[in-house]
Amino acid sequence: MQSSIGCKRWAIAEGYIPGWSHGPEPQFTSHETVCLLNASNEDAHVSITIYFTDREPAGPYRITVPARRTRHVRFNDLTDPEPIPRDTDYASVIESDVPIVVQHTRLDSRQAENALLSTIAYASRD
Amino acid sequence: MQSSIGCKRWAIAEGYIPGWSHGPEPQFTSHETVCLLNASNEDAHVSITIYFTDREPAGPYRITVPARRTRHVRFNDLTDPEPIPRDTDYASVIESDVPIVVQHTRLDSRQAENALLSTIAYASRD
Amino acid sequence: MQSSIGCKRWAIAEGYIPGWSHGPEPQFTSHETVCLLNASNEDAHVSITIYFTDREPAGPYRITVPARRTRHVRFNDLTDPEPIPRDTDYASVIESDVPIVVQHTRLDSRQAENALLSTIAYASRD
Amino acid sequence: MQSSIGCKRWAIAEGYIPGWSHGPEPQFTSHETVCLLNASNEDAHVSITIYFTDREPAGPYRITVPARRTRHVRFNDLTDPEPIPRDTDYASVIESDVPIVVQHTRLDSRQAENALLSTIAYASRD
Repeated sequence: MQSSIGCKRWAIAEGYIPGWSHGPEPQFTSHETVCLLNASNEDAHVSITIYFTDREPAGPYRITVPARRTRHVRFNDLTDPEPIPRDTDYASVIESDVPIVVQHTRLDSRQAENALLSTIAYASRD
Repeated sequence: MQSSIGCKRWAIAEGYIPGWSHGPEPQFTSHETVCLLNASNEDAHVSITIYFTDREPAGPYRITVPARRTRHVRFNDLTDPEPIPRDTDYASVIESDVPIVVQHTRLDSRQAENALLSTIAYASRD
Repeated sequence: MQSSIGCKRWAIAEGYIPGWSHGPEPQFTSHETVCLLNASNEDAHVSITIYFTDREPAGPYRITVPARRTRHVRFNDLTDPEPIPRDTDYASVIESDVPIVVQHTRLDSRQAENALLSTIAYASRD
Repeated sequence: MQSSIGCKRWAIAEGYIPGWSHGPEPQFTSHETVCLLNASNEDAHVSITIYFTDREPAGPYRITVPARRTRHVRFNDLTDPEPIPRDTDYASVIESDVPIVVQHTRLDSRQAENALLSTIAYASRD
């Protein structure tokens, strides 16, 4: 249907959960988020695979984004099949059975004042 | 005409208006902005739909960007058909009848020093 | 030649030069930059047009990026045919006669600690 | 194989390693990073060329990203064939023999509180 927008395969090459935080939780807990938008009229079944520098990938982590909903998932909260280590470089590939849109955001509160970054993820148009 | 640039459907998967602010208003009010550029020679009639985590979408919010103009619209200021709640995750789809370019920016002034993020939105090339 | 990379038409929908600054100049002067990379073996003749909210566009501003060079141009420094006003929303279209790559960055030093944003510009693949 | 994602040629038009830092090393050393994700089942042999404002390009800098791994490389750490000067504008082109995904991040700790920026790099789909 015309309501769907996006792609079925995305990647985020940057990934890093800072090791500590300042300020009131949970808003100011240092975190890294993958924002998922499913504008279609069908539920999206999403699988995330995490890549590391020196070991085989972890996952898949499975998330459902219902039809016409967004979910902003903190990598900090992914625990099944295993938690994502802090203060460690990683990257991710996001796959969905319906088109979705993916954006990547980090809030770093290791110092007294927080810092932010965000970028659209890489959309595979193959 | 050659002057137009962009696409007619865009999406921003991240969306979050911080719940409070520091510093002089309106520049340092925590805000989230959608920047719209219409380089064409026809007015752009833009509709924004807002997606949430746990309810049906809101909108459409209607905005006109005149020919050869830019408008930087704060989500904070969208009130018709309903205001966008603070401290709440959302996402947006932006549709226009002529090609436009869309960029997403947030200024977060919840702490004493402000933080910024920005990214090009997702352009649907379908 | 294989060395060239990029597109000939780009757009940046966000644009805003903060009205004041903190810290040592010129590094900590609040500024907005368009980064231009010309990896080709021919000089790039670049024209920038600036769009506003409530008046006709300004420009073209003309910049040459020599073959195999990058130029990081502060919008603050564009003066011909007219300076870009501070504390004012704008947007830009960047056109080149050879393929280039364009990225947008802001350093905001209005408060004691600086904030940064950056994004790839919108590449027109038409 | 279906596991690979990305492109073989990328570019980052922004590049600047701040000249000084605050806070504990190495996390808070001002740095500029190129994040490389190789989700394929073959090793990626990556070449980075650095472009400047007023001299011929430097490089290639050669990096291997093993199959199913990510590497987050600080430009600060590139020394062969020559180190990248601090407080100097540059840009980069990244080429790989298998598809990869590239993202660009800077942490600027010149002031007491750090600032962050990140963007997906430009993907050449030619």
